[in-house]
Amino acid sequence: MNKIIDLLNQHRTVRKYTEQNIEPNLLNQLLEAACRTSNTGNMQAYSIVVSTESGIKKALAPAHFNQSMVTEAPVVLTFCADFNRVSKWCEQRQADPGYDNLQSFMATTVDTLLAAQTFCIAAESVGLGICYLGTTTYNAKPIIDALHLPKLVVPITTITVGYPAAETEQTDRLPLAAVVHRETYSDYSSSKIDELYEEKENSQFYKDFVSENKKETLAQVFTDVRYTRAGNELFSAKFLEVLKEQGFLK
Amino acid sequence: MNKIIDLLNQHRTVRKYTEQNIEPNLLNQLLEAACRTSNTGNMQAYSIVVSTESGIKKALAPAHFNQSMVTEAPVVLTFCADFNRVSKWCEQRQADPGYDNLQSFMATTVDTLLAAQTFCIAAESVGLGICYLGTTTYNAKPIIDALHLPKLVVPITTITVGYPAAETEQTDRLPLAAVVHRETYSDYSSSKIDELYEEKENSQFYKDFVSENKKETLAQVFTDVRYTRAGNELFSAKFLEVLKEQGFLK
Repeated sequence: MNKIIDLLNQHRTVRKYTEQNIEPNLLNQLLEAACRTSNTGNMQAYSIVVSTESGIKKALAPAHFNQSMVTEAPVVLTFCADFNRVSKWCEQRQADPGYDNLQSFMATTVDTLLAAQTFCIAAESVGLGICYLGTTTYNAKPIIDALHLPKLVVPITTITVGYPAAETEQTDRLPLAAVVHRETYSDYSSSKIDELYEEKENSQFYKDFVSENKKETLAQVFTDVRYTRAGNELFSAKFLEVLKEQGFLK
Repeated sequence: MNKIIDLLNQHRTVRKYTEQNIEPNLLNQLLEAACRTSNTGNMQAYSIVVSTESGIKKALAPAHFNQSMVTEAPVVLTFCADFNRVSKWCEQRQADPGYDNLQSFMATTVDTLLAAQTFCIAAESVGLGICYLGTTTYNAKPIIDALHLPKLVVPITTITVGYPAAETEQTDRLPLAAVVHRETYSDYSSSKIDELYEEKENSQFYKDFVSENKKETLAQVFTDVRYTRAGNELFSAKFLEVLKEQGFLK
């Protein structure tokens, strides 16, 4: 193909970084590239909080269950849905902003995440490694506190960035047919599910993973250990509360 | 910088396409690259519906307010949050899926959008042009009907893709300081807002845009014409209903 698609196909998550800092000019160029991403009505309704000081990173760490990347990475980026700036601009310009609602939250969430992914691809293209932290929406409230996020600002994802300390293995993917539907959605028959997950479930890596977790099936590792109903419901209630407190939901 | 960052910095939305189709093999390579994107727990909890038939595109068009790209683009991709496949897999493997909640919706929404943006960058790298349609979350229900999306599947964004019919202008961006915060969030003072929007508001392009819309300020074009409170509230109510019907919210 081409070098860009090669880069995308080489993607792997990097959780260990060298001590090397990211040059501020380089970081700004990556952020500029991220801000060229498509966004709703060109309002650029999102914010990127760039944290490098160890005090701030330490304050963020518990929200991310103290995963080591947060304090060890030279840069932690918190990508936030943000209608605060746009709304303040409107109020200063004799315009009545109506962005304190779920639809606006979805629009800014879309914009935030597209910019985040462009940032990651730009970063990887200059030899940096990135890790997305899904804990951001679990513990949005302590992140809001640590970063002083005002109303109409909600953290959506966090990326740790730095120069990779070692080569990391690429993770597997399901066959394309697991994810891609032609023309309309084809719901999954039970034989189709078997077929799509066959290679994954039969790999030694996942067989070991199931044993280590003392489960019978790989799916049980997800439902009983990694992403449990109880955990999801707890964090759903917390996130719903955050959406209300930050003004996106009545 | 490098060719990848140059490509990202060259991004522009393309709404007019030539008649040239996208080779199925090429399209699959772009989709494969998209599927390499980081995702929550490597569950790949999203779906991409690839529509090329004119009947399907016509069925989708009204949901996108009949924007011409939908029927004119050779390919329309609907990126969907999807915990249906994962849940079906769990049920078939003696595991109890607990993904019918808001937190799971956020996780799959993140994954969906990151994959969408990787797709777009891959597409642009081979000379294709893309357009994101924000109408997807406005009118999720008719899209669900047109594409036969089952429970735990919600369309999040739509991309039209094709070979550009003409050079298009790049849109402006606010200064980086409008979007990027250092260490923690710095809320915007009124003089900061003036400073950040000065160049945009003083450009002839936006001055003409304000006059054409018969408004006094650029912000009023957003609040009174493009993204009105009444519209946002109407579409918020509809989207909330969709989240309930599709099983992500009680």
